[in-house]
Amino acid sequence: MTEYFTETGSVEAVTARVSPQADARLAEVMASLVKHLHAFVKDVTLTEAEWEIAIDFLTRTGQMCSDTRQEFILLSDVLGVSMLVDAVNNRKPAGSTPSTVFGPFHVDGVPEREMGANISLDGVGEPCLFQGRVVDLDGHPIAGATVDVWSDNADGFYDVQQPDTQPQHNNRGVFRTGDDGRYWFTGIKPVSYPIPDDGPVGQMLGQLGRHPYRPAHMHFLISAPGFARLITHTFVAGDSYLESDAVFGVKAPLIVNFVATEDAESAVRWRADYDFVLPPT
Amino acid sequence: MTEYFTETGSVEAVTARVSPQADARLAEVMASLVKHLHAFVKDVTLTEAEWEIAIDFLTRTGQMCSDTRQEFILLSDVLGVSMLVDAVNNRKPAGSTPSTVFGPFHVDGVPEREMGANISLDGVGEPCLFQGRVVDLDGHPIAGATVDVWSDNADGFYDVQQPDTQPQHNNRGVFRTGDDGRYWFTGIKPVSYPIPDDGPVGQMLGQLGRHPYRPAHMHFLISAPGFARLITHTFVAGDSYLESDAVFGVKAPLIVNFVATEDAESAVRWRADYDFVLPPT
Ligand SMILES: [Fe+2]
Ligand SMILES: [Fe+2]
Repeated sequence: MTEYFTETGSVEAVTARVSPQADARLAEVMASLVKHLHAFVKDVTLTEAEWEIAIDFLTRTGQMCSDTRQEFILLSDVLGVSMLVDAVNNRKPAGSTPSTVFGPFHVDGVPEREMGANISLDGVGEPCLFQGRVVDLDGHPIAGATVDVWSDNADGFYDVQQPDTQPQHNNRGVFRTGDDGRYWFTGIKPVSYPIPDDGPVGQMLGQLGRHPYRPAHMHFLISAPGFARLITHTFVAGDSYLESDAVFGVKAPLIVNFVATEDAESAVRWRADYDFVLPPT
Repeated sequence: MTEYFTETGSVEAVTARVSPQADARLAEVMASLVKHLHAFVKDVTLTEAEWEIAIDFLTRTGQMCSDTRQEFILLSDVLGVSMLVDAVNNRKPAGSTPSTVFGPFHVDGVPEREMGANISLDGVGEPCLFQGRVVDLDGHPIAGATVDVWSDNADGFYDVQQPDTQPQHNNRGVFRTGDDGRYWFTGIKPVSYPIPDDGPVGQMLGQLGRHPYRPAHMHFLISAPGFARLITHTFVAGDSYLESDAVFGVKAPLIVNFVATEDAESAVRWRADYDFVLPPT
């Protein structure tokens, strides 16, 4: 007796079609996707007109993508999917520094700088000293950790978004800790910025009454042999978007007091102290 | 007390961000979408590498779309979503002819033909007489019903897929019933064909061990004042893909015996009798 498609048997109709020879993990992921997608359609009784809007939205989202723009990542970000994927893959022991979204603006192969260097190559912004230690769960320093850091400039744009007007690697640097686990460098106090909102995802945010801003943050990617890689940000305490980050990246332990300083010897006006705690692999 | 993003609170974190001023239906649909999307990620513990594959797949699907190709509709079709949207929006009283997927190949504005006309303009294929009645749930004829019909040609392609080699409106026609509710016209016995499978959706079907074929079918769109519009197919009994339609369109009551005929007077070699039963609006 053949089972044709019915509303109640819709999930089974689709999943039963997958070959037993298909990759087991692919089959598992697709079966779950179909189950949840069909449950969504049934729960809201999605209309034919709404289905057409969804098809058009997904099409425009794909067609907005280019070498310098990834609209589907933005969609994943604003729906909390990127943070959720980060969460389920980076469950860490208590005491570890939490992870957050990687974001689309990391650059591979940035040259290592001497500890203490200034990564603000354009000299625009409020100079800030970033310092602290990379330590293990017992608070012991981790030597030889690479601290890969990147931020937006004073106008809220990453160098890769403005290749014609910013110096290459502006507000980026890679540093390596010594035996004391310490890092320190000068950059600028980061500023809040909107995610690109001139595409379908921005239109969706508008219809939901959501703004596109991220609170000011500094990106960090920290690696050390024998320890779990850490992808995270530090956020500037007091930022007005801390409680409404468009991509849901904020976690309380990542909020840092940026302290105003007066240093007659240098131009530095702020200081941000933060220790990164890495669990073992 | 601010609630930041956590694995357990992920759905609430996203949904709470929607403005109370947003359209209520949009908010309802998005809340359900986020709930089911997050449940999917959690159920399978989607890895970061799998998330990247998904982003890339969706991007390529969007970029495959053009004026003559809608890859996201194909994706919806092969995941059973199109049939499910049809099902939840077209629940019909017992005795009604069931609906099935509309498909991407309907053409608006095809001229009405005289009852009995031949819609096979290229003359290629096995001539077939289609006939029957459009009736209400009591079996009474419906006068003034338009019967809009379309099918692929003998090679499995619709005219709009081959505008350079097929006559315009090849294997398409619109007919209007008289007082007896009867329709009849000549076309060709339709043949099975693959959905376009040279894109991301075809690759996905391949990885799942699924073929891209649809069993041979004739498309019908039937409208009559006072009755629910019917979008359906008739399927050729005995087709080898009836139990594995790539888009899950088959329903048992839509399978029709195509009967071989010998008619010395005409070229007709097959006959397909089918009555369409429309519930009131
Ligand atoms: Fe950022
Ligand atoms: Fe078709």
